[in-house]
Amino acid sequence: MARTEHRRAGRPRQTVLNRERIAGAALAVVDDRGDFTLPEVARRLGVQTASLYHHVDGRAGVVELLRERIGELMDTAPLDGSSWDLALSGYFRSYRAVFAAHPRVVPLLTTSTVTEPRVIAAYERVVVLLEEAGVQRRDVMTIVTAMENFIIGSALDLAAPDVMWEVPEGVDAPRLAAALTAQPAGDGRADRAFEFGMQTFLAMIRRLSEPGDASKEAQHRS
Amino acid sequence: MARTEHRRAGRPRQTVLNRERIAGAALAVVDDRGDFTLPEVARRLGVQTASLYHHVDGRAGVVELLRERIGELMDTAPLDGSSWDLALSGYFRSYRAVFAAHPRVVPLLTTSTVTEPRVIAAYERVVVLLEEAGVQRRDVMTIVTAMENFIIGSALDLAAPDVMWEVPEGVDAPRLAAALTAQPAGDGRADRAFEFGMQTFLAMIRRLSEPGDASKEAQHRS
Repeated sequence: MARTEHRRAGRPRQTVLNRERIAGAALAVVDDRGDFTLPEVARRLGVQTASLYHHVDGRAGVVELLRERIGELMDTAPLDGSSWDLALSGYFRSYRAVFAAHPRVVPLLTTSTVTEPRVIAAYERVVVLLEEAGVQRRDVMTIVTAMENFIIGSALDLAAPDVMWEVPEGVDAPRLAAALTAQPAGDGRADRAFEFGMQTFLAMIRRLSEPGDASKEAQHRS
Repeated sequence: MARTEHRRAGRPRQTVLNRERIAGAALAVVDDRGDFTLPEVARRLGVQTASLYHHVDGRAGVVELLRERIGELMDTAPLDGSSWDLALSGYFRSYRAVFAAHPRVVPLLTTSTVTEPRVIAAYERVVVLLEEAGVQRRDVMTIVTAMENFIIGSALDLAAPDVMWEVPEGVDAPRLAAALTAQPAGDGRADRAFEFGMQTFLAMIRRLSEPGDASKEAQHRS
């Protein structure tokens, strides 16, 4: 009996393996390495690779877990707001912040089809808001995709240096140099570009819905 | 003498090491692995790591070489066009295509300051075109950054599946499902979103330059 206890003490502390722990470990591996393998995730959890298969359907299953985890980190509360433009901009700001914190997850999520139910629910709400804004149904997914592309690029840009361009000694680029000097001081380069692009898309959505609907136009311009 | 010749034949064929070959090897390593180390680049070239230092200033130097190589792959000819919007859209289409072909280079280039002379020259031309379009100097770099964020996100999106969203059995998302069904057939999802976003930015630039200048407004709208 003493021997059994000794062996127990020597074992790694046995915590229940579940999808949440697998998601956390996979995200940590991707943050470190830019990708993951199932053996790496298992090693981080101190379990055998085969044990993962009781909880997830291989690599594709772990990618969907990552999507679920990333989706949970995003603040979807703004999507319940009544003003479509505040709802979308609030949600997309959080979307950018989460990907900026986990930039190496981006290529994994953008190369596989979205099926995760909670993420689908957020897209459902985005579609409803865009249609409320007056976007034609056939244009909705194009606008969603264009905005997501912008947000993902903006998230990666948050990791960029504050001085993104520097005209080296002996290189002739006077207009670029002047434009760099003329940049507003204060809040960050990346945030300014993000807010500018976001407002560009929102203004375009307003404009799309304007022709032939004077009341909507007046409402948006007031 | 026979012995010397034998030893020569046994050596790896000695090609001259230069910056171009280092750039090519580094790009190949990054395409494969998502990152590079100097020893990996050296191994691919069949040289000692120390030899690289005769040509480049360490890791940062190789990153600038990668930027130069990526810049060379881009078609800058459209930038010499006389119409600012055709010039920018032509250049940015090529920009997207190059990053779509080398998506794993993106995080390396977006996290270091641009100093490479030929890349600086392309930015100089972009600045001139935006000012010709009527953009205020203080807004130029914000617009350049926002457009680049969009283009980089769009390049990553080219690697995404054509079916990006799928509402699974038992999940209730009727508006998303309808929007997915209503998407235009024909050319790809990713291309459509890219062109849409690009036109959104160009339209915004036209609009920025309009207030208080009726002749310019008329010209753009004609």
